[in-house]
Amino acid sequence: MLSSSTLQPSPYRLIVKDPTSCARAGILQTRRGLIETPIFMPVGTQATVKAVSPDELTELGASIILGNTYHLHVRPGEALIKDLGGLHHFMQWNRSILTDSGGFQVFSLARLRKITEEGVHFQNHLDGTPTFISPEVSMQIQHDLGSDIVMAFDECPPYPCSHEAMTTSLERTLRWAKRCQEWWSCQSELPQQEKLPLVFGIVQGGSHDDLRRYSAEALVKIGFDGYAVGGVSVGEPEPEMMQAIEASTPYLPEDKPRYAMGLGTPPQMVEMVARGIDMFDCVLPTRLARNGTAFTEQGTLNLKNAPFARDTSPIEEGCTCPACQKFSRAYLRHLVKAEEILGLRLISLHNLHFYLNLMRRTRQSIIEGTFSQFRHDFVSGYKSRDSI
Amino acid sequence: MLSSSTLQPSPYRLIVKDPTSCARAGILQTRRGLIETPIFMPVGTQATVKAVSPDELTELGASIILGNTYHLHVRPGEALIKDLGGLHHFMQWNRSILTDSGGFQVFSLARLRKITEEGVHFQNHLDGTPTFISPEVSMQIQHDLGSDIVMAFDECPPYPCSHEAMTTSLERTLRWAKRCQEWWSCQSELPQQEKLPLVFGIVQGGSHDDLRRYSAEALVKIGFDGYAVGGVSVGEPEPEMMQAIEASTPYLPEDKPRYAMGLGTPPQMVEMVARGIDMFDCVLPTRLARNGTAFTEQGTLNLKNAPFARDTSPIEEGCTCPACQKFSRAYLRHLVKAEEILGLRLISLHNLHFYLNLMRRTRQSIIEGTFSQFRHDFVSGYKSRDSI
Repeated sequence: MLSSSTLQPSPYRLIVKDPTSCARAGILQTRRGLIETPIFMPVGTQATVKAVSPDELTELGASIILGNTYHLHVRPGEALIKDLGGLHHFMQWNRSILTDSGGFQVFSLARLRKITEEGVHFQNHLDGTPTFISPEVSMQIQHDLGSDIVMAFDECPPYPCSHEAMTTSLERTLRWAKRCQEWWSCQSELPQQEKLPLVFGIVQGGSHDDLRRYSAEALVKIGFDGYAVGGVSVGEPEPEMMQAIEASTPYLPEDKPRYAMGLGTPPQMVEMVARGIDMFDCVLPTRLARNGTAFTEQGTLNLKNAPFARDTSPIEEGCTCPACQKFSRAYLRHLVKAEEILGLRLISLHNLHFYLNLMRRTRQSIIEGTFSQFRHDFVSGYKSRDSI
Repeated sequence: MLSSSTLQPSPYRLIVKDPTSCARAGILQTRRGLIETPIFMPVGTQATVKAVSPDELTELGASIILGNTYHLHVRPGEALIKDLGGLHHFMQWNRSILTDSGGFQVFSLARLRKITEEGVHFQNHLDGTPTFISPEVSMQIQHDLGSDIVMAFDECPPYPCSHEAMTTSLERTLRWAKRCQEWWSCQSELPQQEKLPLVFGIVQGGSHDDLRRYSAEALVKIGFDGYAVGGVSVGEPEPEMMQAIEASTPYLPEDKPRYAMGLGTPPQMVEMVARGIDMFDCVLPTRLARNGTAFTEQGTLNLKNAPFARDTSPIEEGCTCPACQKFSRAYLRHLVKAEEILGLRLISLHNLHFYLNLMRRTRQSIIEGTFSQFRHDFVSGYKSRDSI
């Protein structure tokens, strides 16, 4: 049986490699369009990026967003979404969608989990309905949603995790990865209405370098269209997070995209790019916006703070986002203090613009050969005033 | 001393009178622009129409919005707003703003009220700060905010209210109205940077026809740029609400605009137009949207209801609002059930469009001489399926 990755050429084209690091600029092709990498993917957990409309996402220049398999399975269910024409049509987003596998949420949100070789039995977090997700079920859900980039179903052990426990978990995750790949291989033998999505494997192994390498090499042997580094940003210190990336990327093929799941702060993303990562998703831009926190070149601003009460400047001078084009910090502070939805809407737009634009600027610097300088300036400038 | 209304010609121009009722189409001129009446004014309590941006309001065709003097006085304070360039600049809304006087909120929200001839002492609803609002203070706040239509400061007795108690209250409200008018007359004698706002008096009198007439005639004697009917929609049955309007409008001049405060449902507004009302404000479009309720020609839809789960039609066929142009009832239901902000955003846009468009259609029918038919069709069509 052929794996799907052997049925199609690599979806990733490397454009420029930075000579001073592992950073790279490339183009990823999904069945729905081209994505310039490095790229930030806004998180649309429940068929919407929180507080933001599809038109606004398009205006911000987002080329791909993330959907959550677990959440959409629980509500409204993939059957309903499929019957109504798929996730793109349901939410009126016509660019690419990547769906996670549900693994992370099953292991962080769901109750009364029981893991077997077959899959995971659990009660969902909303109403306790008994549910079962296996590698095959996860693939079917993501297929029904109409995802353009499907993630393999993996086990996400909590941090910290001993070498022994991580080895046991990892071996199962690799067997599950093989089953995910086989599920798509069977699909590729059926007459298809449309091109199949890309399928990504997920490197696990926690903070154990040997297991990260083992995981990466084993996944490459199975063969995927791209590779993610999972089990990061699960509570470990930042050096361990970087270490997990460094212990994984050297064993992933250059001609495939690499995705660091659920990361991170702006300087973390730039540092991850320097370590060879191409794709990011993170809830911080929208989650912190709901708390009145805005991202700037110099660090985060908590717009609730009193000094902003009469501050007529925008969140960030020179910023081209819809919030900074029209509204003052004073007005945004008032909206946040008064708990008005327009406040978190505008800050969400600013923060998403900041993240999307940071990756655009990062890419441009790689292409222009100035990434090293850009990386230094951005990371040091951001950190130096992080406490604003 | 001259009253301000004698200093300037009437801001209202009557275009067409409906021969079958007291309905009328006109044009109201504020210092910031022309307003075609009958008009619906979206409510922007805290310097934002809830969940909606100024650009979206402009796209919906709103020509005037309402700001709340009480709320803006409590937070962020009119001094801050004035220093930052006034309410229009603060919230980036360049069309007209009407501000209420704060009276309604003082009598419905504030704690430990003490009413004297001078004004009202109370503790604000947010942190209990002792506050005092008098007619002069209310005028100063509305002046500082930069309001285009200022409302006189009135007492709003609760429903029901005896004839005796209402008489006492009404006499004080009339003395306060005179003080409001005098405050502006003094302003008009000062060298002015810009044209003064319009000042509206408020007819009170509860459900007592004789007091409504007395109030209206006394206010006209003082002389205002326009007249509101207040103390309606305070818990009284609908027939009493209509009665309060009918007992007031005959005693108001034809060449001045008339405004029914805080009303109402769509058929109520059409019926009020038939009784000679030109202006409306109401929180229902945005408040019900936050509960998942949408307005249609046939009545309200609660989008949480199960039958909408797989309903691929828009909220209302043929509706040109941003929600109906792109999104299905099924998607909106999902967003509402999942408590996603985009859901209440889209339903707010639809509901505001419905209210704004209802007044545009009403106006058009008056101009075309078909108001009687329009009124009959709309009111009977709406009521017949109100329980959808």
